Amino acid sequence: MPVKGMRDFPPKDMILRQKVFAIVRNVFERYGFEPFETPAIELAKTLKGKYGEEEKLIYEFEDRGGRKLALRYDQTVPLVRYIVENPEIPKPFRRYVIGKAWRAEEVRKGRYREFYQCDIDTVGAKSILADAEVIACALEALNNLNLKDSYIRLNNRKILAAIIKYAGVKENKVIQVIRTIDKLDKLGEEGVKGELKKLKLRVSEIKKILEVISISGKPNEVVLKAKKVIGKIKEGVEGLEELQELISYLKEFGVKNYVVDLSLARGLDYYTGNIFEIMGKNKKIGSLGGGGRYDKLIAKLSGEKIDLPAVGLALGIERIIEIVKEQNLIQTPPTVVEVYVLPVKKETIPKAINIAKNLRENGFNCEIDLMGRKISRQLEYASSKGIPKVIIVGPKDLAKRKVTIRDMKTGKEEKVNIKDIVGALE
Amino acid sequence: MPVKGMRDFPPKDMILRQKVFAIVRNVFERYGFEPFETPAIELAKTLKGKYGEEEKLIYEFEDRGGRKLALRYDQTVPLVRYIVENPEIPKPFRRYVIGKAWRAEEVRKGRYREFYQCDIDTVGAKSILADAEVIACALEALNNLNLKDSYIRLNNRKILAAIIKYAGVKENKVIQVIRTIDKLDKLGEEGVKGELKKLKLRVSEIKKILEVISISGKPNEVVLKAKKVIGKIKEGVEGLEELQELISYLKEFGVKNYVVDLSLARGLDYYTGNIFEIMGKNKKIGSLGGGGRYDKLIAKLSGEKIDLPAVGLALGIERIIEIVKEQNLIQTPPTVVEVYVLPVKKETIPKAINIAKNLRENGFNCEIDLMGRKISRQLEYASSKGIPKVIIVGPKDLAKRKVTIRDMKTGKEEKVNIKDIVGALE
Repeated sequence: MPVKGMRDFPPKDMILRQKVFAIVRNVFERYGFEPFETPAIELAKTLKGKYGEEEKLIYEFEDRGGRKLALRYDQTVPLVRYIVENPEIPKPFRRYVIGKAWRAEEVRKGRYREFYQCDIDTVGAKSILADAEVIACALEALNNLNLKDSYIRLNNRKILAAIIKYAGVKENKVIQVIRTIDKLDKLGEEGVKGELKKLKLRVSEIKKILEVISISGKPNEVVLKAKKVIGKIKEGVEGLEELQELISYLKEFGVKNYVVDLSLARGLDYYTGNIFEIMGKNKKIGSLGGGGRYDKLIAKLSGEKIDLPAVGLALGIERIIEIVKEQNLIQTPPTVVEVYVLPVKKETIPKAINIAKNLRENGFNCEIDLMGRKISRQLEYASSKGIPKVIIVGPKDLAKRKVTIRDMKTGKEEKVNIKDIVGALE
Repeated sequence: MPVKGMRDFPPKDMILRQKVFAIVRNVFERYGFEPFETPAIELAKTLKGKYGEEEKLIYEFEDRGGRKLALRYDQTVPLVRYIVENPEIPKPFRRYVIGKAWRAEEVRKGRYREFYQCDIDTVGAKSILADAEVIACALEALNNLNLKDSYIRLNNRKILAAIIKYAGVKENKVIQVIRTIDKLDKLGEEGVKGELKKLKLRVSEIKKILEVISISGKPNEVVLKAKKVIGKIKEGVEGLEELQELISYLKEFGVKNYVVDLSLARGLDYYTGNIFEIMGKNKKIGSLGGGGRYDKLIAKLSGEKIDLPAVGLALGIERIIEIVKEQNLIQTPPTVVEVYVLPVKKETIPKAINIAKNLRENGFNCEIDLMGRKISRQLEYASSKGIPKVIIVGPKDLAKRKVTIRDMKTGKEEKVNIKDIVGALE
């Protein structure tokens, strides 16, 4: 069997997956994101120290030369490595990637140790327009996958930091508190309270934080209420401005379905500004992706004083494919084969090859019998694979320069002149 | 930098690679091969004992649960694992795969430690028609990549075994002798002689083997001459029959450019019948792929008495991409972006977003400025990326409901009504 947490994809699954990837890729390219790929393997030191607590999930190993290597854990850190190593590429650099990542996760339904990621990132642009663009692009991709009515939760790391400081918590605990708030969905409010206590926050501090992050209402209402609380903290003012600018750009892109949710934290340490999460239209679907600004990561990794702000968004593509499959949102055939050519006897094989050749030249995906089985067995095979049409090439028909075309759905058969096969199939 | 022997693919490379993969995939599907994928990671024991001498190149590691894992070394062994574990899938099972493999090779020009493979295999069909089909399919893929006039070297493992036995070598050395013959291109005749001496073959045996495998001439001449030598050895008779049947099917597929080359050995141990190698039209290009029958591998791996003959062919896709690139055989743009929308001032951004939105809805790949740089800098950027058209959205033009479209090749500009942009670009 495949290694625990990993999967084989038989043709039926692959056909759907390729269709989903093609739809997503098409939207990404229409927004000007360029294809880009890095190796599956990185030096371990490139990945370490970037993912906070989750770092323990990285697959590490040594090559024969004693190099310490690791399997790619996400698409962002390899992108950043590339950016630092290739300073000459024109900015902004917009790229998408559809590629595998590996994490030694606890395996459970819908969670794998090898999985695809589907990311867009814009490097080198400070403008919040770039934030709006990745969101609009991701939503359009979901829309084209018939996952309509998804919505966006918006927040800003600076706002969160300001809230935490407003509550009286010291600067050096901010990132740990944010990580804990990120567990709200998983642990619930009581669980988070417990974790914050472990971080030695006072009860009054915890109460203040939970009060502010649970402010709800329409986007502008939440912003106004938040302003009353953190409007005098520098980071808070900045964060609120960035969030408002994002909202104004989203309007221009025609994106209407968003909420401001001050409890949104996002797990990774490296976010610096706006953060966002895409949610399915009902709660059962949950998160379909997310991302945010990471304006300091590239400078940090390069160790130099370069200013390369960046923003990115990752679609939870494995989850999305699951939903598309379960809800039958995209129709795909069970096989790529459109026509099965069935030579009735060994002596009709040359003619059958000839017919298949002609069909292929006309763009049909065409399979020819290899087994010499009797007709009924061959029709069974074609039927079990879901091939829609069978061309029966028998000596009697051939004598009249004809073949029999069988529609596998209806079972109807018709005799057709060999030269008219393409027309009859179209 | 990327790990030694591995590569980053910037957009320009990716655009070409994706185009190549799309062309190849299209041909594979027209021949009825279905997409299929296995994990990058396998249990180490699945891979070990399958690749002969090369096994030392497998990347191995342990996961946290102490599982001994390995990175995929080729696409065939994982396919075979899948076939053994899923006996219910209808046969024949034709699949293609375009996926990565990893080998800890000595790195040199054109040889990487992470690389793509591009395989087609047919499982469960004894008919030599299946051999002809993979060859015809691979040649058509090369043809569509404008690698015309490639040709095929054909041989058969049974013929090789018969030649070796005819020379007086004992059965238990056959596979080692075949492995050595496989090095003929690399070591030359003298080198091979030396290696065969190390295997304790007598000078007379070595002489006989080298004499027979160097028989040359037209395909039917080589077959006739070989028949005179090994026509009384059972394996030889079988091998020659299989080869002749393959040649007769190739004729039906319209494949004319092949040679019978009795010195063709192929490196892997598991081949059992016809073997083939695709060669570029001139010697400098060398091998573009190869494959053969492996009728016993599935039974061997399953440990059961099942009869699942198989045949496969792998395109040397990294080499092929290199040649396509060097010889400029396929034209691809340097960027996916077709139109760059340039808002002249901050207040024209909303209209620019609007224009970009409309273009995207009409299928254009469209990038919008994020930097607010002055016009000349923006035109430089568009030019450096190779974007063909720029739409300049300025307040004066907008007042007349117009924009300026600039052709980046000619430098020509024209004013166009906003509602006519799509038409003007087409």
